[in-house]
Parts: sequence; structure tokens; C-alpha cells
Amino acid sequence: MNISEIYKQIREQTTVFCSYLQTEDYSIQVVKFASPPKWHLAHTTWFFEQFILKEYVKDYKLFNKDYNFLFNSYYNNVGKRILQANRGNMSRPTIDEIYAYRQHVDTNMLQLLKGTPNKQLTDLIILGLNHEQQHQELLITDVKYMFGHNPIFPLLDKSYNLVKDKNTKTETIKLKAGIYEIGYQGNNFCYDNELGVHKVYIDDFEIDNYLVTNGDYLNFMQDGGYADFNLWLDDGWSWLNRHQINSPMYWHKVEEEWYCYTLSGLQKVDKNAILCHINYYEANAFAEWKNRRLPTEFEWEIASQKMDWGKRWEWTNSAYLPYPNFKKENGALGEYNGKFMSNKMVLRGASVATSKNHSRPTYRNFFNPTERWQFTGIRLAK
Amino acid sequence: MNISEIYKQIREQTTVFCSYLQTEDYSIQVVKFASPPKWHLAHTTWFFEQFILKEYVKDYKLFNKDYNFLFNSYYNNVGKRILQANRGNMSRPTIDEIYAYRQHVDTNMLQLLKGTPNKQLTDLIILGLNHEQQHQELLITDVKYMFGHNPIFPLLDKSYNLVKDKNTKTETIKLKAGIYEIGYQGNNFCYDNELGVHKVYIDDFEIDNYLVTNGDYLNFMQDGGYADFNLWLDDGWSWLNRHQINSPMYWHKVEEEWYCYTLSGLQKVDKNAILCHINYYEANAFAEWKNRRLPTEFEWEIASQKMDWGKRWEWTNSAYLPYPNFKKENGALGEYNGKFMSNKMVLRGASVATSKNHSRPTYRNFFNPTERWQFTGIRLAK
Amino acid sequence: MNISEIYKQIREQTTVFCSYLQTEDYSIQVVKFASPPKWHLAHTTWFFEQFILKEYVKDYKLFNKDYNFLFNSYYNNVGKRILQANRGNMSRPTIDEIYAYRQHVDTNMLQLLKGTPNKQLTDLIILGLNHEQQHQELLITDVKYMFGHNPIFPLLDKSYNLVKDKNTKTETIKLKAGIYEIGYQGNNFCYDNELGVHKVYIDDFEIDNYLVTNGDYLNFMQDGGYADFNLWLDDGWSWLNRHQINSPMYWHKVEEEWYCYTLSGLQKVDKNAILCHINYYEANAFAEWKNRRLPTEFEWEIASQKMDWGKRWEWTNSAYLPYPNFKKENGALGEYNGKFMSNKMVLRGASVATSKNHSRPTYRNFFNPTERWQFTGIRLAK
Amino acid sequence: MNISEIYKQIREQTTVFCSYLQTEDYSIQVVKFASPPKWHLAHTTWFFEQFILKEYVKDYKLFNKDYNFLFNSYYNNVGKRILQANRGNMSRPTIDEIYAYRQHVDTNMLQLLKGTPNKQLTDLIILGLNHEQQHQELLITDVKYMFGHNPIFPLLDKSYNLVKDKNTKTETIKLKAGIYEIGYQGNNFCYDNELGVHKVYIDDFEIDNYLVTNGDYLNFMQDGGYADFNLWLDDGWSWLNRHQINSPMYWHKVEEEWYCYTLSGLQKVDKNAILCHINYYEANAFAEWKNRRLPTEFEWEIASQKMDWGKRWEWTNSAYLPYPNFKKENGALGEYNGKFMSNKMVLRGASVATSKNHSRPTYRNFFNPTERWQFTGIRLAK
Repeated sequence: MNISEIYKQIREQTTVFCSYLQTEDYSIQVVKFASPPKWHLAHTTWFFEQFILKEYVKDYKLFNKDYNFLFNSYYNNVGKRILQANRGNMSRPTIDEIYAYRQHVDTNMLQLLKGTPNKQLTDLIILGLNHEQQHQELLITDVKYMFGHNPIFPLLDKSYNLVKDKNTKTETIKLKAGIYEIGYQGNNFCYDNELGVHKVYIDDFEIDNYLVTNGDYLNFMQDGGYADFNLWLDDGWSWLNRHQINSPMYWHKVEEEWYCYTLSGLQKVDKNAILCHINYYEANAFAEWKNRRLPTEFEWEIASQKMDWGKRWEWTNSAYLPYPNFKKENGALGEYNGKFMSNKMVLRGASVATSKNHSRPTYRNFFNPTERWQFTGIRLAK
Repeated sequence: MNISEIYKQIREQTTVFCSYLQTEDYSIQVVKFASPPKWHLAHTTWFFEQFILKEYVKDYKLFNKDYNFLFNSYYNNVGKRILQANRGNMSRPTIDEIYAYRQHVDTNMLQLLKGTPNKQLTDLIILGLNHEQQHQELLITDVKYMFGHNPIFPLLDKSYNLVKDKNTKTETIKLKAGIYEIGYQGNNFCYDNELGVHKVYIDDFEIDNYLVTNGDYLNFMQDGGYADFNLWLDDGWSWLNRHQINSPMYWHKVEEEWYCYTLSGLQKVDKNAILCHINYYEANAFAEWKNRRLPTEFEWEIASQKMDWGKRWEWTNSAYLPYPNFKKENGALGEYNGKFMSNKMVLRGASVATSKNHSRPTYRNFFNPTERWQFTGIRLAK
Repeated sequence: MNISEIYKQIREQTTVFCSYLQTEDYSIQVVKFASPPKWHLAHTTWFFEQFILKEYVKDYKLFNKDYNFLFNSYYNNVGKRILQANRGNMSRPTIDEIYAYRQHVDTNMLQLLKGTPNKQLTDLIILGLNHEQQHQELLITDVKYMFGHNPIFPLLDKSYNLVKDKNTKTETIKLKAGIYEIGYQGNNFCYDNELGVHKVYIDDFEIDNYLVTNGDYLNFMQDGGYADFNLWLDDGWSWLNRHQINSPMYWHKVEEEWYCYTLSGLQKVDKNAILCHINYYEANAFAEWKNRRLPTEFEWEIASQKMDWGKRWEWTNSAYLPYPNFKKENGALGEYNGKFMSNKMVLRGASVATSKNHSRPTYRNFFNPTERWQFTGIRLAK
Repeated sequence: MNISEIYKQIREQTTVFCSYLQTEDYSIQVVKFASPPKWHLAHTTWFFEQFILKEYVKDYKLFNKDYNFLFNSYYNNVGKRILQANRGNMSRPTIDEIYAYRQHVDTNMLQLLKGTPNKQLTDLIILGLNHEQQHQELLITDVKYMFGHNPIFPLLDKSYNLVKDKNTKTETIKLKAGIYEIGYQGNNFCYDNELGVHKVYIDDFEIDNYLVTNGDYLNFMQDGGYADFNLWLDDGWSWLNRHQINSPMYWHKVEEEWYCYTLSGLQKVDKNAILCHINYYEANAFAEWKNRRLPTEFEWEIASQKMDWGKRWEWTNSAYLPYPNFKKENGALGEYNGKFMSNKMVLRGASVATSKNHSRPTYRNFFNPTERWQFTGIRLAK
């Protein structure tokens, strides 16, 4: 498939998901960290306009000069922008205008791609498409958050459950101590935070070839896991008490039975399905209760080729910090990953909401330890 | 016109305004005190369903039992409800569903009205229609707030300026000291907070037969009005510093020229037009600067028949408190007015956004002294 | 007694109360609205230095030029000052330094008083002494707040109970409708907010010649008063739920028995004693429960000569607003009362903590409707 | 020196510092994270009473049973306690009572030590003494915070400058790649978080044998370091903008000259002295500006024996996480370190405020990346 085909296919993927939405669903922001669908549609488009069309197309005319203010996410190098918490205040531009914006940018992009893009331009396009895929996942998690916090629990579509998958393996994998190489070594796309191959020494370790299930976690809950401070990190214990947490996100107790909200509606919790929507503190407390621990991101990467990926983003016990030889790019694109390297934990793997072919063994996802709205899970090590 | 006709006409008025909106505009809540248009449409409908159809129609079937939770505003007697600040989190029910809800309730209401409603029922219907008119005004002020806080300043319609009216009179009215009667004495509709006619003694006073203009207020601003703490109440001075206020709401300085946002777009401030969108603290500081004062609500009521109403809600210097013989109704409808009688100031008159025939000389409107999103203005007294 | 004698006596009264304190008690601020004893000692002294010595003593040397920043309370005309919430951050100046400051100012004041002060100076001194007396009361209420919020409930002194007094009368007073004069008419000291005698028309009314007791209030509590939203103003209901209030301030339930903290220690609630430490919302809810109402400040003033004052500050149902002819002074002293005329309710009477001869029938005390740390009580009217 | 001597000496060290304080200084808490001196005095004493006397002395009588509530810091296993932010609300118990408490516990401890304490008891005593030393350092940093935020900048003593020390070396140390052992291997005291010796692979690296000076940092400031978002982590950039930071803590610009507050008073910033009181974000931004980086805690430990320690706590680029074989103790003492392992960065070395012999090459100090009130500094690596 040539790059034009790839471009079209990935861009279309975004609108395929949106075809399940009603117009009313596009503009709402329920919480600061979850953006409205309209914003995702426009922001991914802005990314191509800002970093490619403005640079590579002579006399390119911006679709609308206000959009830089509205749809820049966090690039200080590209100027002022609307506060993240205010992305849901804008009923206008309308959906039709946003789709026209996408159309305008796609037309120009495809025109540009008719030439033979050089390496630098190709790299930017690939980055833009990986960026689009990241937002495809956020679109799903953000819509789930919006629907899951609506008292009438709307259903997106019968086909969108996303949390019913099960483990296929049962064994624990053992690996030997030694020096291993960490970081991306291939010739395809990867983010800057995966680069700078370097050695780490790892001791003997064991890692499960399966993830924690709802049934496992219910045992933790029934054993008083949420009430025993000895299992929790201090920040986690504060978080839990402040928000009165006693179950994973989207779980609701109805007449003594646990249900969870899914994009195909409210459903009974399936004990055999893989646990989802817990944060780092919950993952850590569960491991503590099991007398196990979370793997580090290095252990995970080393074992990754031998493991069945459970289609959850798996919390590791590694803080998100730069690799020893990390180099950030100059200018706006240097803001893509590097500036977030504090107060976050690394997650490895991929989730059911992750775009196909978007992840790899060296991929470093990262979120605040309090966050639960991604499709996150737990794999234990020792 | 019989009551069915009146019902149809007033209910339709709500949807006429909404015909200017796009679907995207219906669900958004920018600030806690301003509700989404969809919510206003549903809440006014719920009022008829809850207080009339459920009581007076045998075997009436609720359109949707969840709606009581979603669309009850503040009636504790009617059960739990969504937090006011979360009214904008609900993309669903869709607009179509809400219009179907209105249709369902209107059909049932008109059926009910075919019988001959007794006095009690008639009174409730009239209350529901006055309630609808209050929300018609809120619809306009809330949409203006949403658009006025969108960085691209959308325009509702060329016809909707609403702040360009001017004074037609120039004189000051003088009234004599004496005992006057206050409160509603007619046979038509009024709210419970206007009842309980009682006497007050008023000293000689003078009151302007015109409102403060933008030009007057610009003089105050240019004279350093927002920087001189001696002009401000202590709470006002805190408010102003906390929010860095230096002009009325919706005013923006563009290249040394003041503009204001109107529903027909951003326009130059017209010095001859009547000032709008100031709060009680600003009104009071302006009066202080002029060596005048705001009228009390009693002075206003006494003079009201001789005055040209400027189509602004006029801040008075009276706190919103019960009249001596105030009696609140039992049950939910007793919550309509009485429970808000603290920390609010009375406004008298009517605004350009007020529904026709909705106000009268005894009408007591009330808002927190910080609020500016209503069409408020200043009339001075001495 | 000549003015020097009065000066000495009133100033000394402040230090008499402080003689019960330990050094550790002087500097602590538990809550924004309650200042440390050290601050009261210094601020009242600063008042004389700032408004009298600096103006009337030639070549007067400030004791310490930093003190204007530290001990100015809220006079914007006198310059910047430490934030109110930060008054308790200063361990220094030490108590010894503050007492030296008082000594320095008193010496200079007494020297000045040896001359024959003119009317203007005399008025200022009288104002300063009334100001000192207001802070004497605040000293007591603030120390009670500090001790009452210390988990070990320290005792100030056996002699300082302050909440055990009882009603001596049982009848209800009836007054006739008519025009009455309101405001201070004597030749002695009063505050500017009492001036501007004016007429009000009052209807027939009844007012109790006794205050609500702890026993009455316990009945309200046992009848579910704190759980019945129909009794509460909306702002009060929010306040109560936010802070989980279910009894007056300083009340604690110990093994099914109600105790209250007093300055002579924790004591069983005496049902016959007069209720204390409730706010406006509680007073209003109690009145609602009794099918009575609070008197207005005018009713209170009219009846005041015939009533037994219960030595509580009594909540009225009047907002604190300017009298029709209110005139504030120029400059800093104009900030004394006028700028607080919003969002506050008037209290009338005097409390057990009020300095002797400090109150009078026209005295207008005022606090936010949420505040309970003053010695407040309830008198009912109809 | 036997253990009784050591006990006496270390305990006395705490009161030696306190001898510089006035009674007024003991009870105040300016900010949540800095406790009042009185609290430190009592809490360290409580530690011996709670973990040793209650366990090892038959029929030991608590000095005061309320003190467990007042002076427990964060041990959930030992019961409820006063909120950290409320430690400064307690004027009582008085200083005299607290010194009597110390006396009481010391007498009992010394009596206990007359027997021959077994290994377990000895270990607990040593832990208690190391705990005391940590609080000796906090006493200094907390008093500095209190004085440094008092507008009159009190001076503790001429002898207590603490920030004037200078580098004695100028070279950069180079170390070779290889596998190194990390963690405490001796036979003396260390904390549980240093245990579990394990191997790490480290690449070639260089590390300065000197710390960043005030002069270096002034260059960063003058080059616009605080205004260039490209140098900052995203969380750091938010922190800086929220608090309007543009210099290290305690620096004040007076007439175009930089001064810093020290415990011996306000002094001109000495360009040759070692920089102090910057947080992790500032350290990281400075390194970025220099095109260098902070060392990891492993690099620091490996190089530590060859380095001149600059007597600052040095920010590393390592998150505070458990070592691979970390085991926390059961019960309350397991809460000492382990539960804080999230959202914190490791600092290595020791500061001028650290008790003599209290630190070592494997010592892992840790603070939130925002904190600046410790005596922190920067060492660069590559």
C-alpha cells in the first residue's frame, strides 16, 4: 500500500467510529482530561495542516485562522490556545464545518502526496498518522467516559463491548538474569521516547502469561482490599478516600450484583473476563495483596515476545523518565513526548481500543497514576 | 383567548427562539449557572408533567421515568436530581427525543384542557406558563453566555442585538414622603413573593426617568472607577480583583476601541445606548461615583407607574427578603421562590429578553450580587 | 471620669483578659475569620497610632514602621497589608515586643490627653476606644474558637463559662402598628451606620420577651430539624450539607449525651440555658419549624426598651444595608462600616462577651449568615 | 560510646537547636508540609514512647493518652490522628508540657537502657535516633520557612547562615560502563529502602565534582530561563506559572539587587556560593539549558566515593521506587518509607542541615518535585 492509501485508510478509520455518534455527542466535555469528539476530529486535522501543509505547500491557505487557537492541544511553540478544560464550551464550529475542514486538509494532503515526498516529509506524515491513531483510541475512551457518566447509560452500539475478552494462557514465564538491550531497533516508525538503545541488567524474574481477571479482583474487593491501608501507597490511599472509591471505574452495584458499563450497555461483570479500568494505585494494591509485584517496563519488554498480550494497557512499576540517550527534537515536535516525563507511570502493551498495528514491544504509553478511563489492566511478576 | 390558545402560544414561543440554534448548541453548559438549551426545553416540559399531568390525568404514563432525575431543577420535594453543574454532561437524550417529550406532554395537556379546568388546575397551568416564560428569558441569556464565551463569537441572528435601545426621557421624577402600599393587589397572576400587601413609609425621593448609558459608564471607567477601592463594597472589591474585571460583561477592547458581543455579533459600544450586563457591585460603585444611590425596591414600585421602563432589569438597593406577611405554599411549589431569600438583591422592571406581558410593577426578580449575565442596568435615585 | 481615666480603664480591660493566656496562645490563627490574640493587641494599638498619634503629635516617631503592614486590618486607604488568612503565620514580633508597643502608644496617648483635646480629637479617641471594645469581644470569641477546635479542649479559666445564663421573663410583647423613628438620636457615641434618623411604618407585631433555650433547640433537633429541607433557605441547606452540620457550634455528642465546649471546659448542655452559637440559617430554620419568624431590625429596635436583653447577639431578618440618609466619612474611617453592606445580616442586642456599656438599642452588629462563632441567639416574633 | 550516651547526645541535639527559639516560634505552622517546632519535639518523643516504651516497659504509663492523636505523624496502624494541615492549630499543650513529656520519656528510656537491650530493641532505638535526626533537619528547614515567610524576616542567630558554602573542586569525574552493585552492604544502620543489594548496568558517564553556584543560576535567569517553556517539563511549567516563580525560594530582588533570606538574616546573593532551595523542575530546566542532565541515583551512588559532597541534597533524575528486592516490614514501621513510593524524586547526598553522621552513599532521600524548602542543589552529569 502506498502512503496515499495508508493516509486515506487511517484518516477514514477516525470517521468510521464517529459514524456511531449523534450530533449531540460531538461537542461535550465531561471532564478536563477527556476531549469532545469534535475536538479530536479537528485537532488531528490541524496537526497535518500545521506541521505539513503550512510548511510544504506553497501559498497554502489556512482553512480558518481561528482554528490554531481552538485546536492546538499543548504545543507552546505553536502559540496560545484554549484551556484544555474549556474544549467542551464550543458549540461552534459545527460538525459540518469540522468535516469540511477535514475534507479541505485531506484534499490538500492527497494532492501533496501525488508528488514524491522526501524522507523528512514522509516521516512527518507517518508521525501525523500515528498521532491520528492515538486520538482514535482517545476518541473511544472519551466517548465511553461521557456515556458512562450519563445517568441514562446510553449505548453506542451492540458491537462495542470491548471488555469481555479472556485469557488464553495460564502459565508463568521465567527469565534468566543478564544484560538486555532496551529500546527500538527496527527501521519502521517509533516515537522519540523509545529511541536510544541501551543496556540494562535484569535479575531472574517470573512474569504471568495472563492478566488479572474480574474474578481475581472481586476476591480482592471482598477481602477488604479497598479498606486496608497497608496495601496502598500513601497517595493512592488519599485518592481513594477523597473520591470514595470502592471498585473499578464503570462498576455499579445493583441489588447486590456488580454490573459494569460498556459501550454496548450496562452488563453483569463477567468473572472470567480480563479486569479493566483500574489505575496504578489499584494495580499496585492488588499486587501487594497477592504478595506479588508489577513488572518493570524493562522486564515487560524483555518478556514481551514470549507473552500473550491481553489487549489491556498494563501498568508497570516504572516511572516515565527519559532513556539515558534520549534526545528531544527541536521546536514543537519536541513537545510530543519529552515534556511529560514527570509524575507519570509507564504502561506497556496495547488495548482493545488501540488502532491495529499501532503498538509494538518497545512502545511506552504513560498516564498519571490516578487515571482509570483508559482500558488498563494488571499483569503480575515476581 | 382561551387557556388552550394561550398554552399553545406560550409553549411555541420557546421553540421559536430555538429555531435559531444548531443541534450542537443545545447540550452545552459553559458555567454552572447557565443551563443548556436542551435542559430548558425539557425542564419546562417536566414542570407540566410533574405538577399537572401526574396529578390530574388518570393513569397518566410518564414519557420516561429517568427524566425526573435529569430535569428536576431544585425541587427537593420531588426527589434527587442531577447536580446543576452537570446539566451539560448529557449528550443524550437527543434533541429529537426532547422534542418528542414536549410533543407528548403538549398533547396530554391540550387533551386535559378540553375539559373545563377548575380554579386550582387553572392556577397551576398559569404558573407553569409563567415558569415557561422565565425560562424563555434564561434561554436567551444562557445562549448569549455560551456564544459570548466562544473565542469565535458566533452570531445567533442579525435580528438579535438586544442591547441597542436608548432612553426616551431625560427628566428626574420627584415623589413625596408618605405611607404607600406595596405588593400585588390585582386579580391576575403573580408570584407568591409579591403577595401580602403591606404599608411602608417612604421619605421624599427623586428617581431618574432614564437609565445609565454606555457613555456614562465609559466616563466612570475612564475616571478610574474600577481602580478606586473607595467606591466599592468590600465583597465587590474582592470579586473585581479575583476576576480582574475592568469592564461590563461582553466588552472587549480591540485596538483601543471598546466592542461588545451581542447576539448579532461583535459591535462597537454605542455611547448612547443603555448600559447592560453589570452586576450589583458595579451598579453600586457607579452610583457612589455619581454621588447618587440605587433606589430601594419600594421606591421603584411606587414610582413605577410614572416611569419609562428601560427594558433592563434594574438593580435596587434592597435585599431579597420575605414581605412581612409572606406565606410559602406547602410542598414542592413552596420551593419556587421562598428558599432563595438570602444573599440576593432585588431587581425590578423587565428586560429586552423578558417575555411579553411577563412583568409588572410588583414583580420581584432576584440574583446574586455578582451576576452579570442577565440584561441588567442602572437607574439612579437620591 | 475624665478621658484619660476612661482611656486607661478600657485599654487595661484588653490586657486583663489576656492575663488568662499562655504565651503559646497569642500567635495562632485557626481559621481566616478569627485573628490571633497578639494581632488584636497590636491592631487596636495601631489604630491609635495611625489615626491619632501620627496626626496630632508633632514629630511622633512610629514604634516600628513595619507594623503598619502587619497590623492594618482592612483600611485600603492606609496601604497594603498582610492577608487576613496569614495573620497567624508570624511568630515574631514577640509578645514582649507587642506589649512594649502598647506601652509606647499608651504613654504617648496619655501625654497627648494632658492637653485639652478638641472635639475632633475627642471623637477620634472615643471611636478608638469603641474599636478597642469591639476587639475585646473578638478576643474572647477567637480564643474560644481556638480552644474549642483543639482536640484536648483546653480550659481558659473556671470563671469563664459565658453560656449558662437563663431567661428571666416568659411573656410575649405586643406592639401597635404605626410610624416609628429609627436610628440614634442621643448625644453620645454611636457608629456612622446608626445615624440618619428616619421613619418606618410597622404593622402590629408580637415579639417574645425571652430567647430560645437549649431545650427548645434540642426539640427541633430531635424532630429532625437538620434533615428537613423544607425548613431551610437554599444557601443554608447547602452550607449544612457541605459541612455535615447537625448541632450548634461547640456541641459534641458523647455517649448519647450532648455536651458543649465552654471556656470553663466541656460541660453538659443545660436545657434551661439560652441557646448560643447558631448562625442565621439555623435561626431561620428554627423559626420556620416553630411557625414563627425572626423580627426585623426595626421591630427589634422599637421593642428594645421594653425587652429583657438576653445577652446574645440576636439574628434579625434584616439585611445589613445603609439607612436612607447614610453618609460615609471620607478616607480610611469611612471604611469602618459602610463597605461591608452586602451579604450580611443584622444582629441586635449584646452578648455576654460584649464590653460593658458598649451596646445600645440602635447598635447594628452584622455578620455573614454562615457565621456561628459569636455568642449568637434567637428571639422569635410574629 | 554506649547506647545510653548516644541516646542522650542525639536527643540533646534537638533541644540545642530549639534554644535559639522564642516561645512564640514553637507552635506555628505556615504551610501544610512544614510542622511547628513543638510538634517535632513531641512527635520524636512519641516515637520512642509508642514503639519502644509501650512494648518493652512493663506497666508503662503513657504520659498523656491524648498525645497519640496529636503527635502521630502518618502511621495508620497506630490509629487516627490530627490532620497534617492542623498541626499548627494547637496552642496547647504548652512548651513546658512538651519538655516535661520529653523528660518523662527520656527518663524511662534511660532506665530501660540500663538493662542490656537485645538486638531487636537496639535496632528500634537506633531507628528512633535516626528518626530524631531526620526531624532535626526538618526543624531547621521548617523554622527557616516560617521566618522566611514573615514579612519582617526575623533572624535566628548570627551563626546560622547555612547557604554560604562553596565548591572546593573543579573537575569532572569519568566512570566506565559496567555492572555495579547498588544498595547498602554494611553492618550499621540503614533504612529499609536502601536494602536489597542488586546489580545495575551503567553506561560510560561523566559527573561534575562540584555543584551549580548562584552565579551559574543567575546566568540561567538572565538568559530568560524562567520564561522559555522549551526548557521545562510540562508539570514544572504549570507550577511556575501558577505560582509566578522567577527565582529560587527565599530570593528577593531589592532595588535591582538579588538578596536571599538566611537564618542569619537577609543577605546579598553570593555568586560563588552553592545554589540552594530549587526544586526538581528548576534543576531539570537548568540542566536542559546547559545541555547536560541530572545524574540518576545509581550514577550518583557509584561515583559517590570519589566525589566531594557539596552539602546540598542533590536532585537526581530517578523516581523514588522500590528496589527489586524491597521488602517492607509488617505493621506501623512498614509505613516508614515504602508507602511514599509514588510521585517523588530521589535526592542523594546530605545538606548543611543534616545531622552529623546521618547520611551515607546509599541514603535515599525523596521529595515531591515541587518542593524547595529543603537545602537542595544541582550536580550535573552527561
